[in-house]
Amino acid sequence: MMTGMTETPHPLYAKHADTLGRALTAIAERGYWSAYPESPSPRVYGENAAAEGEVAFRAYLGRDFPLDQPGARDRVATESSPFGVDLDVRYPHGDPDALIAAATAALPAWRDAGPATRLGVCLEILARLHANIFELANAVQFTSGQAFVMAFQAGGAHALDRALEALAYAYAEMTWHRGTADWEKPAGKGDPLRMTKTFHVVPRGVALVIGCNTFPTWNSYPGLFASLATGNPVIVKPHPRAVLPLAITVRYAREVLAEAGFDPNLVLLAPEAPGEGLASTLATRPEVRIVDFTGSTEYGDWLEANARQASVYTEKAGLNTVVIDSTDDFAGLCRNLGFTLTLYSGQMCTTSQNLLIPRDGIETDQGHKSFVEVAAGIAAAVGKLTADPARGVELTGAIVNDGVLERLEEVTKVGEPVLESRPVEHPSFPGAVVRTPTIVQLDAADTGTYSREWFGPISFAIATDSTAHSLEILRSTVGEKGALTAAVYSTDEAVLDAAESVALEVGVHLSCNLTGGVFVNQSAAFSDFHGSGANPAANAALTDGAYVANRFRIVQSRRHR
Amino acid sequence: MMTGMTETPHPLYAKHADTLGRALTAIAERGYWSAYPESPSPRVYGENAAAEGEVAFRAYLGRDFPLDQPGARDRVATESSPFGVDLDVRYPHGDPDALIAAATAALPAWRDAGPATRLGVCLEILARLHANIFELANAVQFTSGQAFVMAFQAGGAHALDRALEALAYAYAEMTWHRGTADWEKPAGKGDPLRMTKTFHVVPRGVALVIGCNTFPTWNSYPGLFASLATGNPVIVKPHPRAVLPLAITVRYAREVLAEAGFDPNLVLLAPEAPGEGLASTLATRPEVRIVDFTGSTEYGDWLEANARQASVYTEKAGLNTVVIDSTDDFAGLCRNLGFTLTLYSGQMCTTSQNLLIPRDGIETDQGHKSFVEVAAGIAAAVGKLTADPARGVELTGAIVNDGVLERLEEVTKVGEPVLESRPVEHPSFPGAVVRTPTIVQLDAADTGTYSREWFGPISFAIATDSTAHSLEILRSTVGEKGALTAAVYSTDEAVLDAAESVALEVGVHLSCNLTGGVFVNQSAAFSDFHGSGANPAANAALTDGAYVANRFRIVQSRRHR
Repeated sequence: MMTGMTETPHPLYAKHADTLGRALTAIAERGYWSAYPESPSPRVYGENAAAEGEVAFRAYLGRDFPLDQPGARDRVATESSPFGVDLDVRYPHGDPDALIAAATAALPAWRDAGPATRLGVCLEILARLHANIFELANAVQFTSGQAFVMAFQAGGAHALDRALEALAYAYAEMTWHRGTADWEKPAGKGDPLRMTKTFHVVPRGVALVIGCNTFPTWNSYPGLFASLATGNPVIVKPHPRAVLPLAITVRYAREVLAEAGFDPNLVLLAPEAPGEGLASTLATRPEVRIVDFTGSTEYGDWLEANARQASVYTEKAGLNTVVIDSTDDFAGLCRNLGFTLTLYSGQMCTTSQNLLIPRDGIETDQGHKSFVEVAAGIAAAVGKLTADPARGVELTGAIVNDGVLERLEEVTKVGEPVLESRPVEHPSFPGAVVRTPTIVQLDAADTGTYSREWFGPISFAIATDSTAHSLEILRSTVGEKGALTAAVYSTDEAVLDAAESVALEVGVHLSCNLTGGVFVNQSAAFSDFHGSGANPAANAALTDGAYVANRFRIVQSRRHR
Repeated sequence: MMTGMTETPHPLYAKHADTLGRALTAIAERGYWSAYPESPSPRVYGENAAAEGEVAFRAYLGRDFPLDQPGARDRVATESSPFGVDLDVRYPHGDPDALIAAATAALPAWRDAGPATRLGVCLEILARLHANIFELANAVQFTSGQAFVMAFQAGGAHALDRALEALAYAYAEMTWHRGTADWEKPAGKGDPLRMTKTFHVVPRGVALVIGCNTFPTWNSYPGLFASLATGNPVIVKPHPRAVLPLAITVRYAREVLAEAGFDPNLVLLAPEAPGEGLASTLATRPEVRIVDFTGSTEYGDWLEANARQASVYTEKAGLNTVVIDSTDDFAGLCRNLGFTLTLYSGQMCTTSQNLLIPRDGIETDQGHKSFVEVAAGIAAAVGKLTADPARGVELTGAIVNDGVLERLEEVTKVGEPVLESRPVEHPSFPGAVVRTPTIVQLDAADTGTYSREWFGPISFAIATDSTAHSLEILRSTVGEKGALTAAVYSTDEAVLDAAESVALEVGVHLSCNLTGGVFVNQSAAFSDFHGSGANPAANAALTDGAYVANRFRIVQSRRHR
């Protein structure tokens, strides 16, 4: 790793250099590491942190959000909490021309500051967000429908870890080579040719981040910080139903940028009015050279086809699949998959949808289990986790939007339920929309049903002819539609190897025999890659070298010494 | 740099590990380094190397090229030497389906061999090509029209250096993190969660390299070797007029692959019949996931717009520009630019076209020089280099194709010549088409003329209002049309800084005050980047992290320990 930057970095670089160095080690070693504690316990964050964070969150409600941005024409308030809490936060609604002009004007000084200074400032933004993590977690909870602990972890600590991971990759890619080099070529009997060369890291232009409803921070932070660290001003276009977490993010980012002597317009919030289509307007502007998007396949494909002037990084829908062949821990299998299906009501892009089980059943440590017994075992585990409403809602959270409810209704018509979804009254938030997961029995022949994504607490127990047949379905469905996760359960090494071979072929990450405290729908920053970029569910991974390397270019100048 | 690959690499890896290590150091330090001596002297390569290479080259002429590939339907012979030498080499003309099927079948074993083995094999291919460098140089000379020494250097040694550079980047990006990792997360009072994770480097699919007429090897090798090293089988579609250099390349690559125990169909030659449009057929096949192209803006843009299933790396046309403000070495300026304009008859993608000179002239060490004197000084330098035909042709080489001759005719109508082009009889090759460079005087107002590329020995001395005006033209023309190179001559640091600022803004590499033995149209592997990817002349650089990082993906599997 060469760090020969020529500029004297901002003192914030030295302040955070240890964290950066540790993150650089982590992305190479890929063992367990985290910079931001995931436990919201008072023993970790102090006695008052949780209460203060909630107060800070509530102070935003029913008010104009405090953000001083150029070109604000009016204010928009588009959020509606899955927990039934009135939000009514009013955000400055900017003119696209003014936002792009402001971002463009901020670019040169940020570019010229160099990689180390930019890293220092970005790391300080993460520190500022971390100092306000409870405020952020509340905002994530009440916009996404995640239960509090999950909002704190996935929306707070893990999102910050993913941001740091992206920063580490960005720094490594930018500093691969020296900022300046002396070049001396022998020239026969004459004096050598001598030149001094300067290698400038130049950003691509304005970057756009298009947020999603379910994971407004976790899915946005890698792109946001990768673009910012590599010198690109970032316009953040949040999902209309999950603005607050990104508004808070932009607020603190602007605060830190200004304190460090930079133009706060390096990070701008672009909330939209209903039906405005602001993402499409911004994404196709010639000044916008990078787009990060998480959401539907339809819109992701549209961006890839239409935002041709930009590098477009998309995470879209997929068919997350589990191949169940055999197990030496049937209870663990059921518990593990039951938890996966229950967590956040299956509203994770990584939640398994298609459970492929041989119609003749499987061998287990509890003897042979029929297809129905396997499906029922998983259903029972979900049932146990959701039996007590008070405990259940701390796992399921609330239903993010009406689309999920519609699919829950639609799915009752496509097959027999192994487990029916039911509404739950939230003990703390009477307006919350809560549904338990459903599992529907299908046959392998029902491809029309299971080869589309049913986002939400919906999964299918699919009867196949054999494990070989299951693997063939894994190959064909994921090859065609993509997936972010795949899992296999087998006591047979040959089956595990065959599954890994299929996973390599269709480019999906594989988890084997998860029966304990690791779940297929969870990925750990600095260790697990999220998405592979090798199948239709995503054209990039969070986070690897390819995710950051093309967010900047090298422009050199050379002169004789 | 982590190299923790799990497989035992092929012995070829150990054989070439030192070279790889040195190349990895070189791309970070970016000082002078070369692995393949650029001097064709017998003292370097041995007394018989040159003669043996020429014999090997001549043995191909008028024959079926020895290449055993699947699906060959017939043979094609499409080359016509700029030196008037009969070539008539007949290449196997393959069915696209058969080529793609063969490449696809070769992929899994190559993927599973892992990065280190692939690197070892690729480095052995370079060694084999280097052992046959005179044969290769002759093939480049007689298809591209380059003079021998240039063909040996740019088409041989430097092409191999660029290939090695791409291999070093590919290896570094692939081995950024360990091949396997142990992950252990503390879990409160219970046992930690422990997992073993495997990170597989998986290729994107079949790669296509579309060669060009002028630099069949130099411009093709980085993409070819970057794709191959990252696990992708490569189909090489040469320019119909410059097949032989790539046929020789493919021949030796297949030889080495087979010797190393791999499917030779990992590298395939796809020559085309006249008018076949094979590049478009192959580039839009769903199996083809990477395309590398050098050539016209029109076709490069077509590929970017139509080969949507692939990552497309293009190098296209541009407006290479020189801003002349002042100099303390007027003679050196004229000599240096004169050489640039003369070398290979200006048929380099990096040759300067637009020379921007204030209409009131410039200050020099020889006193004030008028616009006409500056233009005449450069013209005189070109004249001196080309005065003696025998010496001149060793610089100019021959005219690559009729398009250049047509432009030489057309340019006589757009402005007054400062220097007229004239035909030259080649002393050794009576059939050679040789033309000396022309320089045409224009005004800054003639944007319609100088804002398009006139590929060939054509440049413009353009009268501007001032250096500030010249910089503005640099900004607008390169910003809109792109450029691979820019240069500035000034004794004023403020002008140099302003030029550098414009260069950063429009993303073009800048050379300052070149008056000696370094020329703006030459870039040195391991030190200079070729193209920036930051302006319309190229969407990528040869070679950097972004050029290789997206040629593969990481697919992980994880299981409990």
